[in-house]
Amino acid sequence: MIVSMQERATEEQIYAVIERMEEAGVDVHRTTGTVQTILAGVGPTANIDLSVFEVLPGVLNVLRISSPYKLAGRAFRPEGTVVEFANGVKIGGEHVAVMAGPCAIENREQIFTIAACVKAAGGGFLRGGAFKPRSSPYAFQGLGIPGLQLMHEAAREHSLLTVTEVMEIAQIEPMLPFTDLFQVGARNMQNFNLLRELGQARKPVLLKRGISATLEELLLSAEYIMAGGNYDIILCERGIRTYETSTRNTMDISAIPVLHKLSHLPVVADPSHGTGRRDMVPPMAKAAVAAGADGILVEIHPNADKAASDAAQTLYLDQFEKLVGELRVIAQAVGRTL
Amino acid sequence: MIVSMQERATEEQIYAVIERMEEAGVDVHRTTGTVQTILAGVGPTANIDLSVFEVLPGVLNVLRISSPYKLAGRAFRPEGTVVEFANGVKIGGEHVAVMAGPCAIENREQIFTIAACVKAAGGGFLRGGAFKPRSSPYAFQGLGIPGLQLMHEAAREHSLLTVTEVMEIAQIEPMLPFTDLFQVGARNMQNFNLLRELGQARKPVLLKRGISATLEELLLSAEYIMAGGNYDIILCERGIRTYETSTRNTMDISAIPVLHKLSHLPVVADPSHGTGRRDMVPPMAKAAVAAGADGILVEIHPNADKAASDAAQTLYLDQFEKLVGELRVIAQAVGRTL
Amino acid sequence: MIVSMQERATEEQIYAVIERMEEAGVDVHRTTGTVQTILAGVGPTANIDLSVFEVLPGVLNVLRISSPYKLAGRAFRPEGTVVEFANGVKIGGEHVAVMAGPCAIENREQIFTIAACVKAAGGGFLRGGAFKPRSSPYAFQGLGIPGLQLMHEAAREHSLLTVTEVMEIAQIEPMLPFTDLFQVGARNMQNFNLLRELGQARKPVLLKRGISATLEELLLSAEYIMAGGNYDIILCERGIRTYETSTRNTMDISAIPVLHKLSHLPVVADPSHGTGRRDMVPPMAKAAVAAGADGILVEIHPNADKAASDAAQTLYLDQFEKLVGELRVIAQAVGRTL
Amino acid sequence: MIVSMQERATEEQIYAVIERMEEAGVDVHRTTGTVQTILAGVGPTANIDLSVFEVLPGVLNVLRISSPYKLAGRAFRPEGTVVEFANGVKIGGEHVAVMAGPCAIENREQIFTIAACVKAAGGGFLRGGAFKPRSSPYAFQGLGIPGLQLMHEAAREHSLLTVTEVMEIAQIEPMLPFTDLFQVGARNMQNFNLLRELGQARKPVLLKRGISATLEELLLSAEYIMAGGNYDIILCERGIRTYETSTRNTMDISAIPVLHKLSHLPVVADPSHGTGRRDMVPPMAKAAVAAGADGILVEIHPNADKAASDAAQTLYLDQFEKLVGELRVIAQAVGRTL
Repeated sequence: MIVSMQERATEEQIYAVIERMEEAGVDVHRTTGTVQTILAGVGPTANIDLSVFEVLPGVLNVLRISSPYKLAGRAFRPEGTVVEFANGVKIGGEHVAVMAGPCAIENREQIFTIAACVKAAGGGFLRGGAFKPRSSPYAFQGLGIPGLQLMHEAAREHSLLTVTEVMEIAQIEPMLPFTDLFQVGARNMQNFNLLRELGQARKPVLLKRGISATLEELLLSAEYIMAGGNYDIILCERGIRTYETSTRNTMDISAIPVLHKLSHLPVVADPSHGTGRRDMVPPMAKAAVAAGADGILVEIHPNADKAASDAAQTLYLDQFEKLVGELRVIAQAVGRTL
Repeated sequence: MIVSMQERATEEQIYAVIERMEEAGVDVHRTTGTVQTILAGVGPTANIDLSVFEVLPGVLNVLRISSPYKLAGRAFRPEGTVVEFANGVKIGGEHVAVMAGPCAIENREQIFTIAACVKAAGGGFLRGGAFKPRSSPYAFQGLGIPGLQLMHEAAREHSLLTVTEVMEIAQIEPMLPFTDLFQVGARNMQNFNLLRELGQARKPVLLKRGISATLEELLLSAEYIMAGGNYDIILCERGIRTYETSTRNTMDISAIPVLHKLSHLPVVADPSHGTGRRDMVPPMAKAAVAAGADGILVEIHPNADKAASDAAQTLYLDQFEKLVGELRVIAQAVGRTL
Repeated sequence: MIVSMQERATEEQIYAVIERMEEAGVDVHRTTGTVQTILAGVGPTANIDLSVFEVLPGVLNVLRISSPYKLAGRAFRPEGTVVEFANGVKIGGEHVAVMAGPCAIENREQIFTIAACVKAAGGGFLRGGAFKPRSSPYAFQGLGIPGLQLMHEAAREHSLLTVTEVMEIAQIEPMLPFTDLFQVGARNMQNFNLLRELGQARKPVLLKRGISATLEELLLSAEYIMAGGNYDIILCERGIRTYETSTRNTMDISAIPVLHKLSHLPVVADPSHGTGRRDMVPPMAKAAVAAGADGILVEIHPNADKAASDAAQTLYLDQFEKLVGELRVIAQAVGRTL
Repeated sequence: MIVSMQERATEEQIYAVIERMEEAGVDVHRTTGTVQTILAGVGPTANIDLSVFEVLPGVLNVLRISSPYKLAGRAFRPEGTVVEFANGVKIGGEHVAVMAGPCAIENREQIFTIAACVKAAGGGFLRGGAFKPRSSPYAFQGLGIPGLQLMHEAAREHSLLTVTEVMEIAQIEPMLPFTDLFQVGARNMQNFNLLRELGQARKPVLLKRGISATLEELLLSAEYIMAGGNYDIILCERGIRTYETSTRNTMDISAIPVLHKLSHLPVVADPSHGTGRRDMVPPMAKAAVAAGADGILVEIHPNADKAASDAAQTLYLDQFEKLVGELRVIAQAVGRTL
């Protein structure tokens, strides 16, 4: 940490700051310039609340040097994390993963039709929601565990893995038999109690970036899970909130290379939520793979216009098949397979 | 709802849209202009996912006319809601409420000292956290129920009411005996399962705006609680995330008059989280009262610099007393009491 | 335009609104629902200031149906605009344009070396700044017209076209002989006087999106130029300001497909300003081409670290050559040439 | 400046960075921690482009310690700037200034009626636009110099000062006889050529914050003007662009105390542009004065609904008179006069 003193800070103020830094457990190196004094604190600063120092008398500003996360940082595993599933499928290596399915599981026929399509296109993961966090209290809320059972059955028939969102701690246990990859939704990215429990789970976690989360906050949430011993985390960019209203969210494609630089964890992209519009999903999926994404998560439905949830951003099955073909070429162009 | 067709939309496309609108249960009124056709849908549109219509062929855009919330809307109670507590204290009328206390309850001495100060200054509510949702997995997490018991004891000794944050459904029941006003934090504003449970609670709820929530989303979250029968909701502005970094958040003072216009619910302001800096709390508290806030929620601590949590934004007790005196004058200037 | 009346609007209020709409020159169609009245205004609404209606008594909200721009809209030229230059080079068709050069022209050797590199890599445009709008009054401000002469000479030697930023009306005339494509920078996107003058110029214009401009505002600025008779406009996405600070700006890749949908104008991308970091330029350039960009604008310099301006985001020449090779493969993957 | 090296940076990389820092003219102090090396650069860093260092091999991040502005910083005039006009009126002291007038000067009767009202209410400044930068090329563009003459005549009849927006360098000279305070609009906040010319002018400048400008950028623009010798700058908060759409802009009230802390320049607030809605102007004007604003700039018109420009945010004259009365009480409550 670096504490910069104001130009007219007194020696008394400087000593008071040094004392507080030492109390916090760091070694202090002082640089006295002609106009300004700078105090560098070296040591275990990850747990220190720096804003406390900002309001001490005579302080100009306080800066954190080291990142507040450790386990999620690139330095922890410079070679990069590859998450491996029971059937040998991997996320994070040379291969680009395709995860697809409906926003909400609706019935047996729907999920089996979709599973067959995902497999035929070469995808590895069937995604579907059983518990839907809807912003309107009057909207469809999902089928619950019976829905998950259907999805799991459909996935296994086609040798696919399942991805589904867990919304609260009490759901983890009942979902466990039917879930290969727990998805934490954007709204729960900072539900720290849930993250802590998932740190104890023996299943990989797909962690979505909150709609207004910084990349540092996303990595700190990953750290929460990893601190519990579960290192199989996959990060997911799904659009952030900006002033622009022509798309529902602004999909931050640059998050993909930035996360790869800051962290060793795989990064996938969700262009369905990232754009909110069916016609924008293919170009943004291509952009994500071109920028280095380790996978793509898309919403598909045989009757997309009448899907029970997220209909506007859901691809028809033939659109999805065409997209996967195009992504395969892009993947090769950037030295990957799909 | 209004569906605007593209200039070159065909009659076939227009009929397809009308059909879908009628299926959704609305009456359709068609306006055929020289260049463009407009379809007005009248009826129960609150539950309709409008984005479905946006991606139908020939559609230019779709607009919601009526607000998606009903119970939280101003029209539901034009005269405004006044939340009344067991001891006769009210929020939402002529009086401006003062709620103060530490970010985290630390020990008996701390909370009793603070309670005495709040009472002496003329405040009505003691606030304090027992379960802290911290963004770092390594930070102090709160005292839990024993902390709440201490706060309740301190509050009652000084005839104060208690406000504290509830983070998950399982906490509601044990917190109930010690809590007069449940606070839902910014991160849980869209934890719809929690909101639904609070709809069943017999205690008022202070609902904080999420860090990137629109006012419409805040009101929709209030609607979630109200849909369960609990109409005693107090809204709280606590700063939003913008591009500006000189304050931790940008406190949206205009949210206060806008919410008063859109809704009948009382609106309080939290300048501590709104700014993140002790020296910015007094000016922003004054601004909030001047703009019509029904109350102020501030963090105070006898040894603010060493508070276990949020130290930088916490006022010393004498700063708080001075501030309440100044707010009293502002309140009078805008026709209120405090 | 659509005016939605409040539920309790009186007939008198409704009539007053209808009268104001008719005064503004539109035909009014009234839809009287069970709870609410809706007034659709059909006619020439592009010039009407809708916010005036928003504050009339009894009005709930007012919505614009038709876009406020006409010439820049896709409907004006459904087949898309292709900007053709004197030497036969085109922007907007099947080919993806490569524009590269230094942020600031520094001297003869620098610009000739760069021109040779751009040509060798297969690029068509040499870009370079002669007048630099710097946010610090103490920074390097550019060589002016002599710099442009150098760039023009270097470009012609290698059969390249020149792109350079025009900052004010008085510069247009002297820049004309040396400039094939006028660039309007992000800070001038709403300098309407400058735009109007460029509408009279006989040279194409590259119009950069302002750092916080919506896509509608960008298209309205294009409309300003086109209203003067100059239809050769190329739009440019170069990053927007969001809350995220890990990149200098957030490059809005989704702007590319959205602009292609809303407008007939070609869209190029500037990943140098879009990210502000050299290591992020290649992935974002690839993402832009994958998403359908009609061209790429990048900053390059033989001694990038010591460039007089924008050094951190400037590619070395060998990095640029490698990137163009990779972009060529991506372009083919999406059915384009480069 | 502080350069933090990566944990695994080599000695060679560290030396290369030190060398570059010394070339840039700063003294380097090295702190070698157990995991990380930190380099503090002390000296004239205001002109250094720090991002160059960010992309050097082995560098983790680079931070500026001192502010990039000097003349505009609080340390330059700790006692605060008071701008004094020829008639003895001051902005920046104990008194809160009231500036009011139409968005656009329309005709003699309009501007004389308004001038009388401003004077009667106790205001000191008549504002009005003669050159309007409109985002639509089809909207009213202003009366030009003849309009300014009218405003000046009306102002002098009532002993008021005039405020009007200057949009380009060529306007400065002809506007000079009729203008007491040059306003630089939000869109021109970074028109550095214009700022430089205003640095030579002998008239005070009201500098509006750009719609997405940080406070640091606003102060750097003030520095541009001050670098030319004109120190009579008044800053103006007028709303920033955020994701929230219920108001046109989000008025950043906290900018007022933050600017007062960072700078010695007076700060006024423009609640008309800050909110875009007439009914939001009074609460936000009160909030601004309560938060310490040195003045208020509001749009008023005898027939507000039919104003040629910005009608929706313009107050009727009686609303203005009532507001000034209320502001007077708020001003007293915070120890000011009005």
